[in-house]
Amino acid sequence: MENGDAAGIRGATNPMVTPLLTDLYQFTMAYAYWKAGKHLERAVFDLYFRKNPFGGEYTVFAGLEECIRLIANFKFKEEEISFLRSVMPTSEDGFFDYLRSINCSDVEVYAISEGSVVFPKVPLMRVEGPVAVVQLLETPFVNLVNYASLVTTNASRHRFVAGKSKTLLEFGLRRAQGPDGGMSASKYCYIGGFDATSNAAAGRLFGIPLRGTHSHAFVSSFMSPDQVVVSGLSSQDGSSTCEDFVALVRSWLSKLQMVESLRGIFGETNQSELAAFISYASAFPNNFLALVDTYDVMRSGVPNFCAVALALNDLGYKASGIRLDSGDLAYLSVEARKFFRAIEKVFGVPGFGTMVITASNDLNEETLDALNKQGHEVDAFGIGTYLVTCYTQAALGCVFKLVEINNQPRIKLSEDVTKVSIPCKKRCYRLYGREGYPLVDIMARENESPPKVGERVLCRHPFIESKRAYVVPQHVEELLKCYWPGNSSKAREELPSLNKIRARCIQQLEQMRPDHMRRLNPTPYKVSVSAKLYDFIHYLWLNEAPVGELQ
Amino acid sequence: MENGDAAGIRGATNPMVTPLLTDLYQFTMAYAYWKAGKHLERAVFDLYFRKNPFGGEYTVFAGLEECIRLIANFKFKEEEISFLRSVMPTSEDGFFDYLRSINCSDVEVYAISEGSVVFPKVPLMRVEGPVAVVQLLETPFVNLVNYASLVTTNASRHRFVAGKSKTLLEFGLRRAQGPDGGMSASKYCYIGGFDATSNAAAGRLFGIPLRGTHSHAFVSSFMSPDQVVVSGLSSQDGSSTCEDFVALVRSWLSKLQMVESLRGIFGETNQSELAAFISYASAFPNNFLALVDTYDVMRSGVPNFCAVALALNDLGYKASGIRLDSGDLAYLSVEARKFFRAIEKVFGVPGFGTMVITASNDLNEETLDALNKQGHEVDAFGIGTYLVTCYTQAALGCVFKLVEINNQPRIKLSEDVTKVSIPCKKRCYRLYGREGYPLVDIMARENESPPKVGERVLCRHPFIESKRAYVVPQHVEELLKCYWPGNSSKAREELPSLNKIRARCIQQLEQMRPDHMRRLNPTPYKVSVSAKLYDFIHYLWLNEAPVGELQ
Repeated sequence: MENGDAAGIRGATNPMVTPLLTDLYQFTMAYAYWKAGKHLERAVFDLYFRKNPFGGEYTVFAGLEECIRLIANFKFKEEEISFLRSVMPTSEDGFFDYLRSINCSDVEVYAISEGSVVFPKVPLMRVEGPVAVVQLLETPFVNLVNYASLVTTNASRHRFVAGKSKTLLEFGLRRAQGPDGGMSASKYCYIGGFDATSNAAAGRLFGIPLRGTHSHAFVSSFMSPDQVVVSGLSSQDGSSTCEDFVALVRSWLSKLQMVESLRGIFGETNQSELAAFISYASAFPNNFLALVDTYDVMRSGVPNFCAVALALNDLGYKASGIRLDSGDLAYLSVEARKFFRAIEKVFGVPGFGTMVITASNDLNEETLDALNKQGHEVDAFGIGTYLVTCYTQAALGCVFKLVEINNQPRIKLSEDVTKVSIPCKKRCYRLYGREGYPLVDIMARENESPPKVGERVLCRHPFIESKRAYVVPQHVEELLKCYWPGNSSKAREELPSLNKIRARCIQQLEQMRPDHMRRLNPTPYKVSVSAKLYDFIHYLWLNEAPVGELQ
Repeated sequence: MENGDAAGIRGATNPMVTPLLTDLYQFTMAYAYWKAGKHLERAVFDLYFRKNPFGGEYTVFAGLEECIRLIANFKFKEEEISFLRSVMPTSEDGFFDYLRSINCSDVEVYAISEGSVVFPKVPLMRVEGPVAVVQLLETPFVNLVNYASLVTTNASRHRFVAGKSKTLLEFGLRRAQGPDGGMSASKYCYIGGFDATSNAAAGRLFGIPLRGTHSHAFVSSFMSPDQVVVSGLSSQDGSSTCEDFVALVRSWLSKLQMVESLRGIFGETNQSELAAFISYASAFPNNFLALVDTYDVMRSGVPNFCAVALALNDLGYKASGIRLDSGDLAYLSVEARKFFRAIEKVFGVPGFGTMVITASNDLNEETLDALNKQGHEVDAFGIGTYLVTCYTQAALGCVFKLVEINNQPRIKLSEDVTKVSIPCKKRCYRLYGREGYPLVDIMARENESPPKVGERVLCRHPFIESKRAYVVPQHVEELLKCYWPGNSSKAREELPSLNKIRARCIQQLEQMRPDHMRRLNPTPYKVSVSAKLYDFIHYLWLNEAPVGELQ
């Protein structure tokens, strides 16, 4: 257990994650194993998924740290034991003594690094240990990896469509699936390449940059500028005080109405909106960003914003920009940009034309793509519902399959070949080509010698005989690393910081060959097995039932 | 604050739900309100949704208790204040003193009872209080109600298709959106009419019945019956001990092979599967339920199960049944039923023919409906992914809109008429007809006199002039009740137990006119406003911008 202490990974981030957060059948099985004297048999399970989500050809692996935290803290409380006893009243006392004794000191976890690009069938995690204990981990591990990987992948896809230069803001807390859904969404969208979140609790817990200004309700809550009491606004450098900021704003609004190039765009603007903007600017003169679509974007919101921004400019402050939350975002962003540029030109305010335009309102991959095609002037996107609920595919479908017990390989057959498991304790490698792109992932039996740089490797499709190719790797990366050594003498990989995981994710995505990543008809990345593993799979398969008697 | 103590609702069930679990802009707005001296202005917000989910015409409201718990415990911790100060470094100290002082003692919450059937536009909750405080509640309230109502509705729809006589089991933890997603799913599926969950932590926290037996991995972990050591199985009444249970099972398997009516169905069964079943039955002789599809349902799983069940029967135990997790569930359930009935007949074992058949494997509303159409013999359904992720619609889209501030009604207009908010502090009623069905919901201004039994009421569509009807209610139910009276002298509704909420939900669903509930082309339930409210909405609308100046 020193591993856990040494790593500073005691204390789970999510207090809901306890050893009881698992399916009841893991306990009934544990009891049956215990009764049969099988509970200490050493089992190897693979955690993997069968299909990439969102019609794409890649997935980002996330959730590992939370799995490691769970096992580092794995210990039943006495009240949990009492509860289980009430649920399993016919089970013997000795079993509950056994449960009491369980920790994960004899479990080993090998995993691909969090934030890596991953593919179907390749184990994301290999978990070894006493069969009864490892099965207790099945449900929480799958739970922790499933949504984390799904939403990270979703975020990375949004980043791909939006492009590197845009700011992406996660606004999903209110539409997320519960409080923890919101917390996870903020964390994993950040890993997937988002820049900031609106979720204050996630900002605090994970150190993610926070963003947010005001809503429509703020604007609606104001009646008229007469309500606004601004008791003197100091200039940015503190050298002077503007005693009547409202009058200064009004004078700018009048000036704007006189500008030739803006003529006809607006007349009388909404005065309660103006009051709201003045109030917000007085509170945040250094960071004035206004939601401009409560009444009418071009006839009221944008001119009101500009009048306030120009008044702030007189005092040495630089306004941040606007947010659009409805309507034709492409058109409105272009019109707003023209308006800003005209002001920069007419009044000679440097930078006014490049004011940040943020867009929100039910955005997703498709709408971002459509905006790109139409042409737009949006600098930042606030994305919520579709991002955090993973609307187009709400689950990844990870599985956790027994691949070996007591050194005996196990295979799970199925009429559906995509559901056949790949047996044996395995090592997995990513082979890179001359141009630096990953070419293929290959799984091999544990005792096989690893692929070598410059030597050709036969990569076979696990199930289809005709699909095979020789690859000469320029670089070989072993994918599964030891994140929890248990009683083995292996070195333990450190759990990287959130920002390191995020950097890995971004680097890994950039490293992929572009045709795997495109939205339309991406090329599948190849996942293969070694010739030896191929032969062994098919030996087991042919001699299927009962597999055990083959050993 | 005595309200909270009296109700025993201190201590939120979910430790993630803190006052910081909200969007940053609620804090920046609070600061702007505070700077403008507006923070104590009394605001009224409605929480409602705009469209029923899943292509249906009803929704079940859930999540209220968690909202009330949040406000009962609403208090910033000093470290949360410090964090906010670091995020808003230019804000004045006085603001943080104000945040420190906030609790919800001056907030009032009126809500429809949890577990009620509800409809678009009608407020689920009306929240009144100082504008700065009520806005802080927006994000968590929407978060807590959105998924809760969505998954409860989804569960109720699964119940509707499955029929009252079936047992419904929620198996979603591993595919839920994070740990808390899994906890919420278990709670709200139970409210929506499910009978039990596999989630042990939810069983403990909420007192939901638990179910679970074993997985494929359990079966795969056995090699052969020689492995099985059953050290004497006592008979059910304790009067005798079977020294060789394995031999007893084997003798039954031989007998089954001789049965004329079962001839040709199976030959040699899988021996490692048999070993797993014997081990499981030895651990749970009173509750033997076997997963029979690891190898081949009819050629191995069902005969193996029956041999073990018959051996248990010799010792006075009654087996529970089987679970099917793949293949053609309709066909396999019918074949298994025939097998069980044949055994009951041939060996005279009472009840063997009505053994419980449970089905799982990616079930959803559509597959349940298809099974019904094909004809099946399934008694219980285990449902996971599609249920808990709300796959067909992953968000409800609740909103929280300002309808009044300082006694001034507010309306939010939009080019999209479905997005126009219904202004004013309102009372809402459900009018019932002669046959006991709800006929229409009607919203009225607070000072209007309520609809009366036996007197005709003009019910108007809020936006379409031609849509109106007179209704003579036989019963009038006021929908919004006081769940948090704040400083008012109103009586506080008790928060009912989980089982009471579930009972209300089931009763409410049964009470609806069937054409609103059917899956195909359901009739929309009517939601209306009073004549006075209609006139007022349209008065505000015509005189739109700026609305404030109309008052």
